[in-house]
Amino acid sequence: MRALVLDGIPRVATDIEEPARAPGEALIAVRVAGICDTDLQLARGYMGFRGVPGHEMVGEVVTADDVRWIGRRVVADINAGCGACDDCRTRGRPPGHHCPKRTVLGILGRSGAFAERLTIPERCLVEVPDGLDDDRAVFAEPLAAALHVLDDLDAGASGASAQRVMVLGDGKLGLLIAFAVAASGARVTVVGHHRSKLAIAAAAGIDTVLESELDGRGVTDVVVEATGTAGGLARALELVRPRGTIILKSTVASPITVDLAPAIVHEIRLIGSRCGDMRAAIDALAAQRVDPRPLIAARYPLARADEALAYAGTRGVMKVLLDA
Amino acid sequence: MRALVLDGIPRVATDIEEPARAPGEALIAVRVAGICDTDLQLARGYMGFRGVPGHEMVGEVVTADDVRWIGRRVVADINAGCGACDDCRTRGRPPGHHCPKRTVLGILGRSGAFAERLTIPERCLVEVPDGLDDDRAVFAEPLAAALHVLDDLDAGASGASAQRVMVLGDGKLGLLIAFAVAASGARVTVVGHHRSKLAIAAAAGIDTVLESELDGRGVTDVVVEATGTAGGLARALELVRPRGTIILKSTVASPITVDLAPAIVHEIRLIGSRCGDMRAAIDALAAQRVDPRPLIAARYPLARADEALAYAGTRGVMKVLLDA
Repeated sequence: MRALVLDGIPRVATDIEEPARAPGEALIAVRVAGICDTDLQLARGYMGFRGVPGHEMVGEVVTADDVRWIGRRVVADINAGCGACDDCRTRGRPPGHHCPKRTVLGILGRSGAFAERLTIPERCLVEVPDGLDDDRAVFAEPLAAALHVLDDLDAGASGASAQRVMVLGDGKLGLLIAFAVAASGARVTVVGHHRSKLAIAAAAGIDTVLESELDGRGVTDVVVEATGTAGGLARALELVRPRGTIILKSTVASPITVDLAPAIVHEIRLIGSRCGDMRAAIDALAAQRVDPRPLIAARYPLARADEALAYAGTRGVMKVLLDA
Repeated sequence: MRALVLDGIPRVATDIEEPARAPGEALIAVRVAGICDTDLQLARGYMGFRGVPGHEMVGEVVTADDVRWIGRRVVADINAGCGACDDCRTRGRPPGHHCPKRTVLGILGRSGAFAERLTIPERCLVEVPDGLDDDRAVFAEPLAAALHVLDDLDAGASGASAQRVMVLGDGKLGLLIAFAVAASGARVTVVGHHRSKLAIAAAAGIDTVLESELDGRGVTDVVVEATGTAGGLARALELVRPRGTIILKSTVASPITVDLAPAIVHEIRLIGSRCGDMRAAIDALAAQRVDPRPLIAARYPLARADEALAYAGTRGVMKVLLDA
């Protein structure tokens, strides 16, 4: 099959073997995939990754043990847990996200979505309703991660909606988080460096401010750190109020140098936040509470995935899609 | 009056002016004071401090607006808020700890306890009951900070007692935290480098382990980082389980370099924690739930406070007391 392969310079190959479906897994024909900053980092050697990347996708089930899945349009939780450990069996939240034996689609031990086909456990599948097109459904994975931010807002008496939330970073993830938080009813402001990106949030009715024009310290209850830069945390520590919360969404691949004394003096809570609930994301998309399509910057056929990856890594470019 | 003064090499002076009592404040004759690592950092120039340090103390009220205080033996919340702002008026927790106009006894804008006399707002005072001697009462401030850790343990269905808590650091604060957590019923293990210090915890019935003999990753629900070193956080990130909690108690005075990617991948909560509730500390001491006296390493008269400070800064020395 055709796929993008990372093992040196990213290249498209047509002789990649189709992944073998294990019992309990579905074989998926990818329809559309999205390029994420994590993919760009993997291409630069993050986690020593080799193979087929890609974890944002919508596809169609080709084969599955449970024949009811066959032919259905789906997205999938990218965390494929063992299904048997404590983490996999805990109820009330997506299982397997912290399974020590998990594979992660296109990131860890499982061939990814920048390919014609992939496999994933059937228990990871979420059906895409008919009214929801591929170009929105392909955002389910990053939107789930964005919605997961809401799980870490203080649920106190007044709930999330009473809180002032500042999203630091106007990239793809930052804007999706802003959409997700705004949809929850909380007061959200996006802080960024790019007028063109902030304009996408503003068009969705979200407050924005240029980083260079932002003054003040301790001005917000919650900061979502989504800059993807080493300096983001220090800036977040300035902006959050005493006893406030910083939600860490940026995986910066290398160590950062930061003065954490303010976190202790001001008793700040810093909460690492990774993947979310795919079903919640599909629901939010289907109900049109979030429309991610303004984030689409370009689309390429899978045959030109190498070019697509290069373009996605260009400064200021938002979401690049691949048509399989 | 006599006091220890920091404005270069620490020195004891006898010509220091007694602090002037403002309306609403009490004038306190210090009985016993304790030397904290923060004092050692202030002596090295932390926060650009100049003047009389010292914030752990038990004393007797000499004068106060409310004459009922006069002659009573007291400890005091070291955070003297303005009394009028939102932080000062919020109920349900010690007020003023994050007041932007606060002074802090012997740390910020208020002359401290390594002196014959000090002033503090009457609303900061907590009376010491008759049965509680000075040598225990002088630990109220650091014990309050230690007990404050309990506020950040998940209160979920099973409560704090179901959690495995690891205290990283066997210094004065680490051991007090271990005492406090053990008294709450949680399972606590102290991790340290010093057999002699760990022996103090062991004598109180607390599990201990030498850092060099500690193996494994993700082995505990909560890590309390109390090493006072730049490397403590990285070690805490190794030891805590996914979705676990790290409580940050070490104020390291300079920036640290740390890889925070594990905090995001494993969705760790990091919570800065500073001062606690003095009344809770006095109650725990009076009820003998915590006995801090094994931590006392030496005592000096105030006239030799410079020597006391030097001794307190010697590697491996625990709590040094000053008799005023």
